[in-house]
Amino acid sequence: MTPPADLSRLCVHTITTKPWPLEQAAREYARAGVRGITVWREALEGRDPERAGELLRSHGLSIVSLCRGGFFAHVDEAARRQALVDNRAAIEQAAALGAPMLVLVCGAAPGQPLERSREQIRAGIEAILPYAEEHGLRLAIEPLHPMYSDSRSAINTLAQATDLALAIGSEALGVAVDVYHVWWDPMLESEIARCGSAAKLFAFHVCDWKTPTNDLLLDRGLPGEGCIEVRRIRGWMERAGFSGYNEVEIFSETHWASEQEHFLNQIVQSYRAHV
Amino acid sequence: MTPPADLSRLCVHTITTKPWPLEQAAREYARAGVRGITVWREALEGRDPERAGELLRSHGLSIVSLCRGGFFAHVDEAARRQALVDNRAAIEQAAALGAPMLVLVCGAAPGQPLERSREQIRAGIEAILPYAEEHGLRLAIEPLHPMYSDSRSAINTLAQATDLALAIGSEALGVAVDVYHVWWDPMLESEIARCGSAAKLFAFHVCDWKTPTNDLLLDRGLPGEGCIEVRRIRGWMERAGFSGYNEVEIFSETHWASEQEHFLNQIVQSYRAHV
Repeated sequence: MTPPADLSRLCVHTITTKPWPLEQAAREYARAGVRGITVWREALEGRDPERAGELLRSHGLSIVSLCRGGFFAHVDEAARRQALVDNRAAIEQAAALGAPMLVLVCGAAPGQPLERSREQIRAGIEAILPYAEEHGLRLAIEPLHPMYSDSRSAINTLAQATDLALAIGSEALGVAVDVYHVWWDPMLESEIARCGSAAKLFAFHVCDWKTPTNDLLLDRGLPGEGCIEVRRIRGWMERAGFSGYNEVEIFSETHWASEQEHFLNQIVQSYRAHV
Repeated sequence: MTPPADLSRLCVHTITTKPWPLEQAAREYARAGVRGITVWREALEGRDPERAGELLRSHGLSIVSLCRGGFFAHVDEAARRQALVDNRAAIEQAAALGAPMLVLVCGAAPGQPLERSREQIRAGIEAILPYAEEHGLRLAIEPLHPMYSDSRSAINTLAQATDLALAIGSEALGVAVDVYHVWWDPMLESEIARCGSAAKLFAFHVCDWKTPTNDLLLDRGLPGEGCIEVRRIRGWMERAGFSGYNEVEIFSETHWASEQEHFLNQIVQSYRAHV
C-alpha cells in the first residue's frame, strides 16, 4: 500500500479556485500549506508574467507549470498557423513566469479524421519544440479522456502520449498524467511503468470521477468524491520514478460556486485522506 | 472507399424510437423499409415474448438481438447472484422471442476497483454461457465508452472485449461493436481486424457523436450529425468479415421528443447518406 501523501508535494491549479484572482490564490494557497502552483494562462490576463512569477515565489510557492498550450489540430491551415503563434507566446509567458513546463492539450477538430488531427498535433509539437528548448522549458503532452476526442484532443491514452513523445524524441518532451483522463485504462499501470522507464513522466494531476457525472467538462470531484483510486495510481507513478508534485486540478461549477476558502481547506483534507 | 449501405442490412433498435410501443414500432419500421429489429427488454414489458416474436416476423422483420443482459459487477454478492437470475430470464426471453443473440452491457460498480468488476464480469459470463448455449443463443460483449467505466461497464475497449471473449473461449460468445463507444480508439481498425479474424464480430451498432455532447447518456446523434466516420468503420467491419445488420441505436432526448414518423424517415435518409 502507498502511504498518504504529505503536503510537501501538494500543488493546486489556479483554475481549481477559479473565482480567485492570482494574487489571492497565491496568498490563500500559501496560508493553507500548499507548496506548488500551476498557473492557468487566464489567471495571467492583464498581468506581467515576470512580476506574477516574483509574487508567487515571494509566497514560497514553487511554480510547477503553465497550463495550457496545444490545440494544434484545425481543419483550416490559417488556424493551425495561429496555434503555433499562440504556443510560442505561451512559451515566452512560461519562461517569464519562471514555470519550468508548459502542459499541452493537443486539440482535435470534429470536421476531420482523428489521424489527421494526430498528424497535425505531431507537426505542431515539432514546430514549437525548438523554441521551448531555447527557453529551457519542458513540454508535457496530456492525454485527454476519450469523451474529448471530438474537439479537445485526439491523444486519448497514455500509450499514445508516450509513443508520441518517444517518436519526436527530445528530452524536453514528456507526458502529463491526469487521473481523470486515464483512470479507466486497463493498461494504466503498465503504461505508467513504460512511460517512467522512458523518463517521460513529467506531471501528475489529481481529482475524481463522480457518479453520476452531470457535465462532461465541469463536474469533476475532489479526490474521494468519486471512484478513482487516486492513491493507488500515485503509487504506480512513484514506483515508475515520478517524484514531482501531485497537482490538484478540478473543474467544477459546484465547487466554484462554493466559498473558496472552505473549498481550499477541503482540498487539503481530501489530499491528506485520498492522495 | 466503402460504398453506401443499401437498406437490406438496416436494423433499428426499439429504444431508438422509445415513444412507440413495440407493435407500432414493428409496423412503422416495416413501412419505412427497415429489415431488422433489435428489441429492448423494456419494449417487451407486459407482453408474451413468443407472440411478440411472431408479430415482428409477420411484418417481415428479422429479429437481430435482444438488448440487454449483463450488469454482472456489484459490490454486494446478493446483487451479483440476482444479476445471474436476471440474465437467465433474459436468455429465456430471447429464445422465446426468436432472437439469436443477447447483447451484454457488462456492468461496473463505483465502490470497487475496476479489475474486481472485470473478474466479476468474467465470472458472470461464464456462469450464464452454458444456459445461453442450451438455448441456441449467442452472447455479445459490448465494450462501452470509457465515460461509462464508473457504473455501466468496466469493459471499455474493443481489445478488452475480444480478449475476454477469447479467454472464455466459446463459439457462442463474441463482441458487439458500437461506433459511439469505440470510434476514438487509435487501435480501432486493427482491433476490428483481429476480432474478425477470431470470428468474434457479432454485432455492429451505429449512431453519431455530437459536438457539443450535452448529456453523457441521452444526447447521441443520427449518423451524419456528428464526427464519427461511420461508413469508414463499417468498411473495416466488412473487410474483417462482418456481414450482419447495421443497427441504428440512438438514445436522444431530443429525437425522442420529436415526431417519431419523421424521425424514422430521418433515420433511413441518414443511413443512406452516412452508413
